[in-house]
Amino acid sequence: MKIENGERLILLTNDDGLYARGLKTLLEVMEEFGKVVVISTIESRSGMSQALTVKMPIRVKLLEETEKRRVYACSGTPTDGVKIAMNQLLDRFPDWVVSGINHGANASVSVVYSGTMAAAIEGSLYGVDSVGFSLNDFSSEADFGPAKDIIRQVMSSLVKEKLPKGICLNVNIPSCKENEIKGIRVCRQAKGNWREEFDKRKDPMGKTYYWLTGVFRNHEPEAKDTDEWAIVNKYVSVVPVSADMTAHGYITDLKKRFHEE
Amino acid sequence: MKIENGERLILLTNDDGLYARGLKTLLEVMEEFGKVVVISTIESRSGMSQALTVKMPIRVKLLEETEKRRVYACSGTPTDGVKIAMNQLLDRFPDWVVSGINHGANASVSVVYSGTMAAAIEGSLYGVDSVGFSLNDFSSEADFGPAKDIIRQVMSSLVKEKLPKGICLNVNIPSCKENEIKGIRVCRQAKGNWREEFDKRKDPMGKTYYWLTGVFRNHEPEAKDTDEWAIVNKYVSVVPVSADMTAHGYITDLKKRFHEE
Repeated sequence: MKIENGERLILLTNDDGLYARGLKTLLEVMEEFGKVVVISTIESRSGMSQALTVKMPIRVKLLEETEKRRVYACSGTPTDGVKIAMNQLLDRFPDWVVSGINHGANASVSVVYSGTMAAAIEGSLYGVDSVGFSLNDFSSEADFGPAKDIIRQVMSSLVKEKLPKGICLNVNIPSCKENEIKGIRVCRQAKGNWREEFDKRKDPMGKTYYWLTGVFRNHEPEAKDTDEWAIVNKYVSVVPVSADMTAHGYITDLKKRFHEE
Repeated sequence: MKIENGERLILLTNDDGLYARGLKTLLEVMEEFGKVVVISTIESRSGMSQALTVKMPIRVKLLEETEKRRVYACSGTPTDGVKIAMNQLLDRFPDWVVSGINHGANASVSVVYSGTMAAAIEGSLYGVDSVGFSLNDFSSEADFGPAKDIIRQVMSSLVKEKLPKGICLNVNIPSCKENEIKGIRVCRQAKGNWREEFDKRKDPMGKTYYWLTGVFRNHEPEAKDTDEWAIVNKYVSVVPVSADMTAHGYITDLKKRFHEE
């Protein structure tokens, strides 16, 4: 694979692994926009958040190289994969980092647990335009078809105008037929959390173990400017996301508490 | 351990493991404020971010129970540990979740990779007042002594007045003698990122592997309202942190891009 002058270089990853149907769909659309380097794990690595592999070395294997793409398997997390591509595998920074399409939504507070979004955030920390795509359907038969045109629309907007440095996009696509999607809504992340999170079991030796499970609760189901409201109402949600987790609105009050002012 | 009426219940965790000196120091101070339940891993789990254990069951073992404390070993990530304590191990939600003292700073963008801060953020998602403490010294001989009085000051402020729901504190303590600490500064998270992040090596079979490493770069070293500036200048930084990663300031412009307004 050779990148011609002026040709777009796209880094593609996900947290569902190299054989996920969502990755395949996103690759098909990305190849309309440029040359693609894919890096992901063989197995899925869901819920990895922005985790780094600190105590183990990382392995990378080139699986496929054609005129249009290179595909790497990486033993690390989605964030490791983006970092190692940026630092070791690519001759230059890519024009875009795209992640997904995740099997399942990454709206509301799920953004902090999501490996898909962590990869996009990591891209934005390198100053590269980055987008994470998720489909609101966990099932293995999920229909990724309607997502294609949405992805084209979002990426075409980046062709026209780059994102501000340090901001990436979190795009969640509702699970419905293409003609039922009502449009794209720019949103904020809904306030919410997860509850009833464990399934307690006994192993064959009689010892207790726990499986993570849980139910999401939207704390503001009436608020129409949130990503949760959008996808429930069959809109595509687009949330601008930044790695700045400062609660800026509380700084002034917090200063009073520590007698600064 | 029995919690009397009106007595404070404190959940304590970290990502450096149960035998870390930072955890021991934080436990000593917390026992001045109430009864403490400790949950952490046997080995360290640094750089785990807000990762969840999705594909493996989680094991928990009660290691110690006295009048003053209970100590659990947990096989999961720091976030798993907080969730399982909230859902399965505690009779009621704790009054505080405290995490640390981390061996090494968690200022600037490190907040998104940090298991220490992830545990505090997780606590805040349950509506519990939560604080992550870190000392700007990675060495095993780090002096945690000066941190004690800082921790007392921060937690005493929470005794007087609770935090707003969904906001936790990221406290970074400079590495210097107690009388050199200039005070507490409420800050925002500095803009920065990590670079030159891998050490490429050959294993005894001649195959390539990579170790994560890297150098932090502060993008705004002159800005005096950041956590990086504070700890470099021997102040304790206190940043209010929220799980809301929406880049609120960019929503209006992003709406224009998608022709909403």
